[in-house]
Amino acid sequence: MDIEKVNSMDFGEFVDVFGNVIERCPLIAAAVWSQRPFSGLEDLEKHFFAIVDALPQSGQEGILRCHPDLAGRELQRGALTAESQREQAGAGLASLGAGERLRLAELNAQYRARFGFPFVLAARLQDRAAVPRELARRLHCPPAQELRTALGEVRKICRLRLADLFGVDPARL
Amino acid sequence: MDIEKVNSMDFGEFVDVFGNVIERCPLIAAAVWSQRPFSGLEDLEKHFFAIVDALPQSGQEGILRCHPDLAGRELQRGALTAESQREQAGAGLASLGAGERLRLAELNAQYRARFGFPFVLAARLQDRAAVPRELARRLHCPPAQELRTALGEVRKICRLRLADLFGVDPARL
Repeated sequence: MDIEKVNSMDFGEFVDVFGNVIERCPLIAAAVWSQRPFSGLEDLEKHFFAIVDALPQSGQEGILRCHPDLAGRELQRGALTAESQREQAGAGLASLGAGERLRLAELNAQYRARFGFPFVLAARLQDRAAVPRELARRLHCPPAQELRTALGEVRKICRLRLADLFGVDPARL
Repeated sequence: MDIEKVNSMDFGEFVDVFGNVIERCPLIAAAVWSQRPFSGLEDLEKHFFAIVDALPQSGQEGILRCHPDLAGRELQRGALTAESQREQAGAGLASLGAGERLRLAELNAQYRARFGFPFVLAARLQDRAAVPRELARRLHCPPAQELRTALGEVRKICRLRLADLFGVDPARL
């Protein structure tokens, strides 16, 4: 994939390819298409972030609520998006023991009850030991700070998924 | 479904139930959940419309781009959402002859090329003869007017789907 190819896409193709770089939010990709042509991958990424940033707080919380729990029921059921499945499996979350799964389920439930959105983490940048540790730490953050942190993770996930689609090393972005 | 039941839903249940009242935009339902409790169906609907209205133009175009063509490839392939399938079939679009399908495909393509989003129509309020007629008429409208018209259709679809979920006659809304 290169940027000329991206700029030549009609909105249907664009949403098919980029519809899940923000998890389960094809609306965001569909909105980004309005901003074409893009000068490169960084420019494309900038437009994704700009749309997320321009949403009211309820919309930003809405993005978070479209994310699955880490090591949650959707992983068990095989109901994750392909990207989430790969990321959660890559972080070792598909092979947790029953005790670790239960511990994460309890922390996830506490987190959702406190903040009104699920715990979002760029799992690919973490290992399985780091996930419950980060969850337990962020559970005690003030809500406004936690919303910012969670949206930062959405951006990291978006960057990694875009890098995958372009076949580039995300460290180069 | 009554409003007490809706107000008792966690965000996961809420998005499961209302995630497609705006076609393929669970983000909108997930954002609306921030506004609970709701005083009734009309109040709930008002919050859906408010989020759509608050989006920048690119976001409103994005909502439209998440809609399928009427009598398009997704209908042929069985790839529509359950709601769209019911609505398009109910308007007789699943039983068009090859000539009518071709005519609609041509008009849909012209419309997408002109406006940058697909032709959106609350198909349940139309019959199969009205669809190509409306499409041909709206194809010649000024773009700013057409965006407003199309978003009006999104609202009608949202209202009908909400009425279905509550089991009420949409004429009462």
